[in-house]
Amino acid sequence: MSKQFHVAVVGATGAVGQQMLKTLEERDFPIASLKLLSSKRSAGKVLTFKGKEYTVEEATPESFEGVQIALFSAGGSVSKALAPEAVKRGAIVVDNTSAFRMDPNVPLVVPEVNESDLKEHNGIIANPNCSTIQMVVALEPIRQQYGLKKVIVSTYQAVSGAGLEAIEEMKQQTKDILEGNEFTPEILPVGGDKKHYQIAFNAVPQIDLFQDNGYTFEEMKMMNETKKIMHMADLEVAATCVRLPVETGHSESVYIETEKGGASVQELKTLMESSPGVTLQDDPANQLYPLASECVGKNDVFVGRIRKDLDRDNGYHMWIVSDNLLKGAAWNSVQIAESLAKLNLLK
Amino acid sequence: MSKQFHVAVVGATGAVGQQMLKTLEERDFPIASLKLLSSKRSAGKVLTFKGKEYTVEEATPESFEGVQIALFSAGGSVSKALAPEAVKRGAIVVDNTSAFRMDPNVPLVVPEVNESDLKEHNGIIANPNCSTIQMVVALEPIRQQYGLKKVIVSTYQAVSGAGLEAIEEMKQQTKDILEGNEFTPEILPVGGDKKHYQIAFNAVPQIDLFQDNGYTFEEMKMMNETKKIMHMADLEVAATCVRLPVETGHSESVYIETEKGGASVQELKTLMESSPGVTLQDDPANQLYPLASECVGKNDVFVGRIRKDLDRDNGYHMWIVSDNLLKGAAWNSVQIAESLAKLNLLK
Repeated sequence: MSKQFHVAVVGATGAVGQQMLKTLEERDFPIASLKLLSSKRSAGKVLTFKGKEYTVEEATPESFEGVQIALFSAGGSVSKALAPEAVKRGAIVVDNTSAFRMDPNVPLVVPEVNESDLKEHNGIIANPNCSTIQMVVALEPIRQQYGLKKVIVSTYQAVSGAGLEAIEEMKQQTKDILEGNEFTPEILPVGGDKKHYQIAFNAVPQIDLFQDNGYTFEEMKMMNETKKIMHMADLEVAATCVRLPVETGHSESVYIETEKGGASVQELKTLMESSPGVTLQDDPANQLYPLASECVGKNDVFVGRIRKDLDRDNGYHMWIVSDNLLKGAAWNSVQIAESLAKLNLLK
Repeated sequence: MSKQFHVAVVGATGAVGQQMLKTLEERDFPIASLKLLSSKRSAGKVLTFKGKEYTVEEATPESFEGVQIALFSAGGSVSKALAPEAVKRGAIVVDNTSAFRMDPNVPLVVPEVNESDLKEHNGIIANPNCSTIQMVVALEPIRQQYGLKKVIVSTYQAVSGAGLEAIEEMKQQTKDILEGNEFTPEILPVGGDKKHYQIAFNAVPQIDLFQDNGYTFEEMKMMNETKKIMHMADLEVAATCVRLPVETGHSESVYIETEKGGASVQELKTLMESSPGVTLQDDPANQLYPLASECVGKNDVFVGRIRKDLDRDNGYHMWIVSDNLLKGAAWNSVQIAESLAKLNLLK
């Protein structure tokens, strides 16, 4: 990658935006120029990138003049309003919100799974939901080798997925409970919903708003996005999404049924060890399994506790953990940008 | 219940023992005399029951002379050593440890599910594992009405299941992390295992020791005990058990497949509303669902988030929450004692 690109980061001051900058820096992404954009409220803040200071500007349609690739993570309404404007001005948009994910004209990409879908883009590429990404990275090698019929997932999700204010609320509430102070939940489980519940020392089975069918939008995202990314409209997949008092790092308890049964646990472990983006951490005898507390700051998806279902020869259980701000968001977005460059799709 | 009974509580100073005393008091269990027993270490402590002070005595075989019912919750080795001694002296033992649960001569009882199994007792009755109890209370009415084929459960378990020291460790560790202090995990996830991990702001997929098949003993308990309590040797059941930074209150994400499909969510809700020991909390439009933080101190099992699987007509998902120290332990034990009295099984 000797070419350099004009890059914009939209939502640069948010939890994911900050990780995007860190990741672009660490990966040494070939940047010719960098624009940091945000809402009016955060404009004027100064952020440092590779030792140089950048003043955050308010994102407007004109901000994208001359930009080749724009990484969006400033909420769905910002993406809906500004991503088409960026595309109109010649930029390719990698959007980390749910605004365009299920749009049939928009590829939904996890590079380890469906990098070649990038070739079909029409200006916008969607970055999937955090909890979906880490699951499909682990499941795709299994699908390729054994086929995949059914997925039942229960999640253990960190509050950083709900933004910096949610982290603050969790910490303050935890302190208040330990000190015996009164407190009033104001953000979690969902900032935009009517009721708010205690997250500290609790497990809240609601992430995003409820749909008419009784599933939350987060659960529907996991189910629909998994099918789209894996090109498996008929995959049976069901999710229960739960928010925990964990700052960063989503964990998932996943049950799968494969088309071909009979694979041993050792075969699956060997497969995981050779799979892109996966680190196997699986040695029960030595209490080795993935932990949210250990995944923070790392790009990989960690897989462990692989075991056979005791009733079905094609059934398996596993525990999948990843940093929701990195592979679940910032790193997957930057990875898409790297893939676009590699595939010569950045004009 | 006009008769009164000579009662002993073994492990009276522990997390469950204290709840047993509270529950015996609240239920006004007909007690003629009460003995509080413990290990040598805790003997001499003074506990109050119904306004009267009792000095805790070291449990020995002779402690059980004249005792009619002994509630044990002092660890498996104490039960193994002393429960037969108590039985020899004419007591009926309700044992809250895993020592005798899978013994074919010992009934494993959740009164809402299999109260009549008490009639087959040979002196010892086993109280099931906390996470098992709350699940079977919710599933038994469904089994009766629709038949049950398959259960996949992922748990979200509180630290109080690991005892008072585990609660202390969680709180201190949480404080240390918030204040930026160093800390060394020493108890959780399993006091008797080699390695210990951070529980604060984490999700640890290990409860109890690992078995050779890759499952933990906690997971095997849930699987085997569910089959025994429900008299369904052929039930497909698989568990993933996870410890969370929650003080009290276990939550469970449960997927089931019934024999007869087609029941609507409303039918299941109506069934749960009329089921013994169950409180339905299920109104997604108003964000009503069970929460660990809300179940503490209550005897019931709380069920919500009931929804149909979108792929299988006989598939359902639900969220089951209960106070692990009450229905999961103390209340179920006292309930067994009440059933024994009601069925005239206490000599």
